[in-house]
Amino acid sequence: MKNLEKYIYSIPDFPKPGILFRDITGVLDSGEGLQLAVDALTSHLAPRDFDVVAGIESRGFIFGAPVAYKFGTSFAPVRKPGKLPRATIRQEYKLEYGEATIEMHADAVKPGQKVVIVDDLLATGGTAEAAAKLVERLGGKVVKMIFLIELYDLGGRERLSKYNVESLVRFPGH
Amino acid sequence: MKNLEKYIYSIPDFPKPGILFRDITGVLDSGEGLQLAVDALTSHLAPRDFDVVAGIESRGFIFGAPVAYKFGTSFAPVRKPGKLPRATIRQEYKLEYGEATIEMHADAVKPGQKVVIVDDLLATGGTAEAAAKLVERLGGKVVKMIFLIELYDLGGRERLSKYNVESLVRFPGH
Repeated sequence: MKNLEKYIYSIPDFPKPGILFRDITGVLDSGEGLQLAVDALTSHLAPRDFDVVAGIESRGFIFGAPVAYKFGTSFAPVRKPGKLPRATIRQEYKLEYGEATIEMHADAVKPGQKVVIVDDLLATGGTAEAAAKLVERLGGKVVKMIFLIELYDLGGRERLSKYNVESLVRFPGH
Repeated sequence: MKNLEKYIYSIPDFPKPGILFRDITGVLDSGEGLQLAVDALTSHLAPRDFDVVAGIESRGFIFGAPVAYKFGTSFAPVRKPGKLPRATIRQEYKLEYGEATIEMHADAVKPGQKVVIVDDLLATGGTAEAAAKLVERLGGKVVKMIFLIELYDLGGRERLSKYNVESLVRFPGH
Protein backbone atom coordinates (compact mmCIF):
# COMPACT_ATOMS: atom_id res chain seq x y z
CA MET A 1 0.00 0.00 0.00
CA LYS A 2 1.92 2.97 -1.31
CA ASN A 3 -0.31 5.51 0.45
CA LEU A 4 0.37 4.00 3.83
CA GLU A 5 4.06 3.48 3.21
CA LYS A 6 4.79 7.20 3.24
CA TYR A 7 3.62 7.40 6.89
CA ILE A 8 6.13 4.80 8.07
CA TYR A 9 9.44 6.12 9.33
CA SER A 10 12.68 4.14 9.25
CA ILE A 11 14.76 4.68 12.38
CA PRO A 12 18.36 3.44 12.30
CA ASP A 13 19.84 1.73 15.38
CA PHE A 14 16.61 1.36 17.37
CA PRO A 15 16.10 -0.33 19.79
CA LYS A 16 19.74 -1.39 19.42
CA PRO A 17 22.65 -0.72 17.05
CA GLY A 18 22.35 -2.37 13.64
CA ILE A 19 18.55 -2.58 13.61
CA LEU A 20 16.59 -0.46 11.13
CA PHE A 21 13.33 0.03 12.99
CA ARG A 22 10.15 0.47 10.94
CA ASP A 23 8.15 2.93 12.98
CA ILE A 24 4.40 2.91 12.70
CA THR A 25 3.98 5.90 15.01
CA GLY A 26 4.24 8.05 11.88
CA VAL A 27 0.84 6.63 10.92
CA LEU A 28 -0.52 8.10 14.17
CA ASP A 29 0.88 11.59 13.60
CA SER A 30 -2.02 12.63 11.42
CA GLY A 31 -5.70 11.86 11.34
CA GLU A 32 -5.31 10.86 7.69
CA GLY A 33 -2.64 8.27 8.48
CA LEU A 34 -4.62 6.64 11.27
CA GLN A 35 -7.82 6.53 9.22
CA LEU A 36 -5.95 5.16 6.22
CA ALA A 37 -4.41 2.37 8.31
CA VAL A 38 -7.60 1.39 10.14
CA ASP A 39 -9.69 1.56 6.97
CA ALA A 40 -7.16 -0.62 5.14
CA LEU A 41 -7.23 -3.19 7.96
CA THR A 42 -11.01 -3.27 8.03
CA SER A 43 -11.29 -3.54 4.25
CA HIS A 44 -9.03 -6.62 4.40
CA LEU A 45 -11.32 -8.10 7.05
CA ALA A 46 -14.67 -7.30 5.44
CA PRO A 47 -17.22 -8.72 5.28
CA ARG A 48 -16.95 -9.55 8.95
CA ASP A 49 -16.71 -13.27 9.59
CA PHE A 50 -15.24 -13.32 13.09
CA ASP A 51 -16.26 -12.76 16.69
CA VAL A 52 -13.17 -11.41 18.42
CA VAL A 53 -10.25 -9.12 17.59
CA ALA A 54 -7.14 -10.05 19.58
CA GLY A 55 -4.60 -7.24 19.79
CA ILE A 56 -1.02 -7.76 20.92
CA GLU A 57 0.40 -5.34 23.52
CA SER A 58 0.73 -2.57 22.97
CA ARG A 59 0.88 -1.22 19.40
CA GLY A 60 -1.58 -3.96 18.46
CA PHE A 61 -4.02 -2.23 20.82
CA ILE A 62 -3.80 1.03 18.86
CA PHE A 63 -4.85 -0.64 15.62
CA GLY A 64 -6.87 -3.60 16.91
CA ALA A 65 -9.24 -1.61 19.10
CA PRO A 66 -10.57 0.64 16.30
CA VAL A 67 -11.03 -2.46 14.12
CA ALA A 68 -13.04 -4.20 16.86
CA TYR A 69 -15.04 -1.05 17.47
CA LYS A 70 -15.82 -0.62 13.79
CA PHE A 71 -17.00 -4.22 13.35
CA GLY A 72 -18.77 -4.38 16.71
CA THR A 73 -16.76 -7.35 17.98
CA SER A 74 -15.15 -7.87 21.34
CA PHE A 75 -11.48 -7.04 21.85
CA ALA A 76 -9.10 -9.47 23.55
CA PRO A 77 -5.88 -7.88 24.81
CA VAL A 78 -2.83 -10.15 24.58
CA ARG A 79 -0.44 -8.90 27.26
CA LYS A 80 2.82 -9.44 29.04
CA PRO A 81 2.51 -11.48 32.25
CA GLY A 82 0.87 -9.94 35.31
CA LYS A 83 -1.02 -7.17 33.51
CA LEU A 84 -4.44 -8.81 33.17
CA PRO A 85 -6.50 -8.81 36.36
CA ARG A 86 -8.65 -11.94 35.94
CA ALA A 87 -7.83 -15.62 35.37
CA THR A 88 -5.44 -15.98 32.44
CA ILE A 89 -3.72 -18.59 30.36
CA ARG A 90 -0.11 -18.01 29.39
CA GLN A 91 2.10 -19.11 26.56
CA GLU A 92 5.88 -19.13 26.48
CA TYR A 93 7.78 -18.77 23.24
CA LYS A 94 11.32 -18.40 22.02
CA LEU A 95 12.91 -15.19 20.88
CA GLU A 96 16.16 -14.91 18.97
CA TYR A 97 17.86 -14.61 22.34
CA GLY A 98 15.93 -15.94 25.31
CA GLU A 99 12.26 -16.48 25.95
CA ALA A 100 9.11 -14.44 26.37
CA THR A 101 5.64 -15.05 27.76
CA ILE A 102 2.24 -13.62 26.83
CA GLU A 103 -1.15 -13.97 28.48
CA MET A 104 -4.80 -13.72 27.60
CA HIS A 105 -7.85 -13.75 29.84
CA ALA A 106 -9.19 -17.29 30.02
CA ASP A 107 -12.67 -16.05 29.11
CA ALA A 108 -11.59 -13.69 26.31
CA VAL A 109 -12.30 -16.32 23.65
CA LYS A 110 -15.16 -18.82 23.94
CA PRO A 111 -15.04 -22.28 22.33
CA GLY A 112 -15.95 -22.06 18.66
CA GLN A 113 -15.36 -18.33 18.32
CA LYS A 114 -13.52 -17.02 15.28
CA VAL A 115 -10.63 -14.71 16.06
CA VAL A 116 -8.55 -12.20 14.10
CA ILE A 117 -5.10 -11.39 15.49
CA VAL A 118 -3.91 -7.81 14.88
CA ASP A 119 -0.43 -6.43 15.41
CA ASP A 120 1.67 -3.65 13.96
CA LEU A 121 4.60 -5.76 12.79
CA LEU A 122 5.31 -9.27 11.51
CA ALA A 123 8.99 -10.15 11.92
CA THR A 124 9.86 -13.73 12.94
CA GLY A 125 6.25 -14.45 13.84
CA GLY A 126 7.00 -15.78 17.32
CA THR A 127 4.62 -13.53 19.20
CA ALA A 128 1.77 -13.98 16.74
CA GLU A 129 2.23 -17.76 16.83
CA ALA A 130 2.11 -17.72 20.63
CA ALA A 131 -1.04 -15.57 20.52
CA ALA A 132 -2.62 -18.06 18.12
CA LYS A 133 -1.80 -20.91 20.50
CA LEU A 134 -3.58 -19.05 23.30
CA VAL A 135 -6.67 -18.64 21.12
CA GLU A 136 -6.59 -22.32 20.15
CA ARG A 137 -6.11 -23.50 23.73
CA LEU A 138 -9.33 -21.64 24.57
CA GLY A 139 -11.16 -23.45 21.77
CA GLY A 140 -11.13 -20.55 19.33
CA LYS A 141 -10.17 -20.57 15.68
CA VAL A 142 -7.70 -18.06 14.23
CA VAL A 143 -9.32 -17.08 10.95
CA LYS A 144 -6.81 -14.39 10.06
CA MET A 145 -3.67 -12.62 11.24
CA ILE A 146 -3.17 -9.09 9.96
CA PHE A 147 -0.19 -6.78 10.32
CA LEU A 148 0.47 -3.22 9.23
CA ILE A 149 4.05 -4.07 8.33
CA GLU A 150 5.63 -7.33 7.24
CA LEU A 151 9.41 -7.74 7.30
CA TYR A 152 9.27 -10.34 4.59
CA ASP A 153 12.68 -11.99 4.87
CA LEU A 154 12.67 -12.95 8.53
CA GLY A 155 10.68 -16.16 8.12
CA GLY A 156 7.48 -14.99 9.77
CA ARG A 157 5.15 -16.05 6.98
CA GLU A 158 6.76 -19.51 6.84
CA ARG A 159 6.46 -19.93 10.59
CA LEU A 160 2.80 -18.94 10.37
CA SER A 161 2.11 -21.00 7.24
CA LYS A 162 -0.88 -22.76 8.77
CA TYR A 163 -2.61 -19.40 9.20
CA ASN A 164 -4.18 -16.89 6.84
CA VAL A 165 -1.66 -14.04 7.05
CA GLU A 166 -2.11 -10.57 5.56
CA SER A 167 -0.06 -7.40 5.74
CA LEU A 168 -0.48 -3.89 4.41
CA VAL A 169 3.12 -2.88 3.73
CA ARG A 170 6.23 -5.03 3.16
CA PHE A 171 9.87 -4.21 3.81
CA PRO A 172 13.09 -6.21 3.96
CA GLY A 173 14.08 -6.94 7.55
CA HIS A 174 17.81 -6.44 7.10
CA MET B 1 -23.49 5.74 33.20
CA LYS B 2 -25.46 2.78 34.48
CA ASN B 3 -25.27 0.93 31.17
CA LEU B 4 -21.51 0.98 31.18
CA GLU B 5 -21.20 0.18 34.86
CA LYS B 6 -22.45 -3.35 34.42
CA TYR B 7 -19.46 -4.15 32.17
CA ILE B 8 -16.92 -3.19 34.83
CA TYR B 9 -15.69 -6.00 37.05
CA SER B 10 -14.41 -5.48 40.58
CA ILE B 11 -11.41 -7.68 41.35
CA PRO B 12 -10.33 -7.95 45.00
CA ASP B 13 -6.63 -7.94 45.89
CA PHE B 14 -5.28 -6.97 42.44
CA PRO B 15 -2.53 -6.00 41.75
CA LYS B 16 -1.80 -6.37 45.46
CA PRO B 17 -3.67 -7.36 48.64
CA GLY B 18 -6.18 -4.80 49.90
CA ILE B 19 -6.82 -3.15 46.55
CA LEU B 20 -10.23 -3.52 44.90
CA PHE B 21 -9.34 -3.24 41.24
CA ARG B 22 -11.94 -1.80 38.86
CA ASP B 23 -11.41 -3.79 35.71
CA ILE B 24 -12.34 -2.23 32.39
CA THR B 25 -11.46 -5.37 30.43
CA GLY B 26 -15.09 -6.44 31.00
CA VAL B 27 -16.02 -3.61 28.64
CA LEU B 28 -13.93 -5.32 25.97
CA ASP B 29 -15.52 -8.75 26.40
CA SER B 30 -18.40 -7.89 24.13
CA GLY B 31 -18.86 -5.78 21.06
CA GLU B 32 -21.71 -3.98 22.83
CA GLY B 33 -19.51 -2.96 25.76
CA LEU B 34 -16.73 -1.61 23.58
CA GLN B 35 -19.11 0.34 21.36
CA LEU B 36 -20.96 1.71 24.38
CA ALA B 37 -17.71 2.92 25.95
CA VAL B 38 -16.27 4.48 22.79
CA ASP B 39 -19.58 6.07 21.83
CA ALA B 40 -19.93 7.54 25.34
CA LEU B 41 -16.41 8.98 25.15
CA THR B 42 -17.02 10.49 21.73
CA SER B 43 -20.38 11.94 22.73
CA HIS B 44 -18.65 13.72 25.63
CA LEU B 45 -16.09 15.10 23.17
CA ALA B 46 -18.46 16.18 20.40
CA PRO B 47 -18.53 18.45 18.56
CA ARG B 48 -14.84 18.00 17.92
CA ASP B 49 -12.80 20.96 19.03
CA PHE B 50 -9.34 19.41 19.30
CA ASP B 51 -6.50 18.24 17.09
CA VAL B 52 -4.88 15.36 18.96
CA VAL B 53 -5.97 12.49 21.19
CA ALA B 54 -3.23 11.53 23.65
CA GLY B 55 -3.65 8.01 25.06
CA ILE B 56 -1.79 6.76 28.10
CA GLU B 57 -0.10 3.34 27.87
CA SER B 58 -1.62 0.95 27.54
CA ARG B 59 -5.33 0.76 28.38
CA GLY B 60 -5.57 4.38 27.23
CA PHE B 61 -4.54 3.10 23.79
CA ILE B 62 -7.54 0.74 23.64
CA PHE B 63 -10.02 3.57 24.18
CA GLY B 64 -8.09 6.54 22.83
CA ALA B 65 -7.31 5.08 19.41
CA PRO B 66 -10.96 4.46 18.41
CA VAL B 67 -11.82 7.98 19.58
CA ALA B 68 -9.03 9.47 17.44
CA TYR B 69 -10.07 7.29 14.51
CA LYS B 70 -13.71 8.31 14.82
CA PHE B 71 -12.94 12.05 14.95
CA GLY B 72 -10.16 11.88 12.36
CA THR B 73 -7.50 13.33 14.65
CA SER B 74 -3.95 12.17 15.23
CA PHE B 75 -3.15 9.88 18.14
CA ALA B 76 -0.23 10.59 20.47
CA PRO B 77 0.89 7.60 22.53
CA VAL B 78 2.12 8.47 26.03
CA ARG B 79 4.50 5.68 26.99
CA LYS B 80 6.91 4.36 29.55
CA PRO B 81 10.55 5.31 28.89
CA GLY B 82 12.42 3.71 26.00
CA LYS B 83 9.38 2.55 24.04
CA LEU B 84 9.08 5.39 21.54
CA PRO B 85 11.59 5.25 18.69
CA ARG B 86 12.01 8.92 17.79
CA ALA B 87 13.07 12.00 19.79
CA THR B 88 11.00 12.26 22.95
CA ILE B 89 10.44 14.51 25.92
CA ARG B 90 9.98 12.89 29.31
CA GLN B 91 8.26 13.84 32.53
CA GLU B 92 8.88 12.40 35.97
CA TYR B 93 6.16 12.31 38.58
CA LYS B 94 5.58 10.98 42.05
CA LEU B 95 3.59 7.90 42.88
CA GLU B 96 2.34 6.96 46.34
CA TYR B 97 5.57 5.03 46.72
CA GLY B 98 8.42 6.07 44.47
CA GLU B 99 8.56 7.78 41.11
CA ALA B 100 7.58 7.09 37.52
CA THR B 101 8.42 8.56 34.14
CA ILE B 102 6.43 8.89 30.94
CA GLU B 103 7.42 10.01 27.47
CA MET B 104 5.86 11.46 24.36
CA HIS B 105 7.34 12.01 20.92
CA ALA B 106 8.63 15.57 20.70
CA ASP B 107 6.67 16.10 17.47
CA ALA B 108 3.43 14.44 18.62
CA VAL B 109 1.92 17.79 19.57
CA LYS B 110 2.60 20.99 17.63
CA PRO B 111 2.49 24.44 19.25
CA GLY B 112 -1.08 25.68 19.49
CA GLN B 113 -2.70 22.29 19.04
CA LYS B 114 -5.62 21.34 21.27
CA VAL B 115 -5.26 17.97 22.95
CA VAL B 116 -7.63 15.56 24.70
CA ILE B 117 -6.04 13.11 27.16
CA VAL B 118 -7.76 9.70 27.38
CA ASP B 119 -7.17 7.00 29.95
CA ASP B 120 -9.17 4.18 31.47
CA LEU B 121 -8.87 5.24 35.11
CA LEU B 122 -8.55 8.41 37.17
CA ALA B 123 -7.17 7.65 40.63
CA THR B 124 -4.72 10.14 42.16
CA GLY B 125 -4.28 11.90 38.82
CA GLY B 126 -0.49 11.75 38.82
CA THR B 127 -0.08 10.14 35.43
CA ALA B 128 -2.66 12.37 33.74
CA GLU B 129 -1.04 15.47 35.24
CA ALA B 130 2.36 14.36 33.94
CA ALA B 131 0.85 13.72 30.49
CA ALA B 132 -0.65 17.21 30.54
CA LYS B 133 2.75 18.69 31.37
CA LEU B 134 4.25 16.92 28.36
CA VAL B 135 1.55 18.40 26.13
CA GLU B 136 2.09 21.88 27.57
CA ARG B 137 5.89 21.68 27.25
CA LEU B 138 5.33 21.02 23.53
CA GLY B 139 3.17 24.14 23.29
CA GLY B 140 -0.15 22.31 23.20
CA LYS B 141 -3.28 23.04 25.22
CA VAL B 142 -5.09 20.32 27.15
CA VAL B 143 -8.73 21.05 26.43
CA LYS B 144 -10.11 17.99 28.18
CA MET B 145 -9.16 14.88 30.13
CA ILE B 146 -11.58 11.99 29.93
CA PHE B 147 -11.60 8.71 31.84
CA LEU B 148 -13.84 5.67 31.74
CA ILE B 149 -13.67 5.28 35.50
CA GLU B 150 -13.10 7.85 38.22
CA LEU B 151 -12.20 6.73 41.74
CA TYR B 152 -13.68 9.86 43.20
CA ASP B 153 -12.17 9.91 46.69
CA LEU B 154 -8.48 9.68 45.84
CA GLY B 155 -7.96 13.37 45.11
CA GLY B 156 -7.53 13.10 41.34
CA ARG B 157 -10.07 15.74 40.42
CA GLU B 158 -8.58 18.20 42.93
CA ARG B 159 -5.07 17.57 41.64
CA LEU B 160 -6.33 18.18 38.09
CA SER B 161 -8.51 21.17 39.06
CA LYS B 162 -6.98 23.40 36.39
CA TYR B 163 -8.20 21.01 33.69
CA ASN B 164 -11.59 20.12 32.30
CA VAL B 165 -12.02 16.58 33.65
CA GLU B 166 -14.79 14.17 32.70
CA SER B 167 -15.47 10.55 33.55
CA LEU B 168 -18.11 8.03 32.54
CA VAL B 169 -18.46 5.96 35.72
CA ARG B 170 -17.57 6.83 39.33
CA PHE B 171 -16.62 4.50 42.19
CA PRO B 172 -15.13 4.96 45.63
CA GLY B 173 -11.41 4.18 45.64
CA HIS B 174 -11.35 2.44 49.01
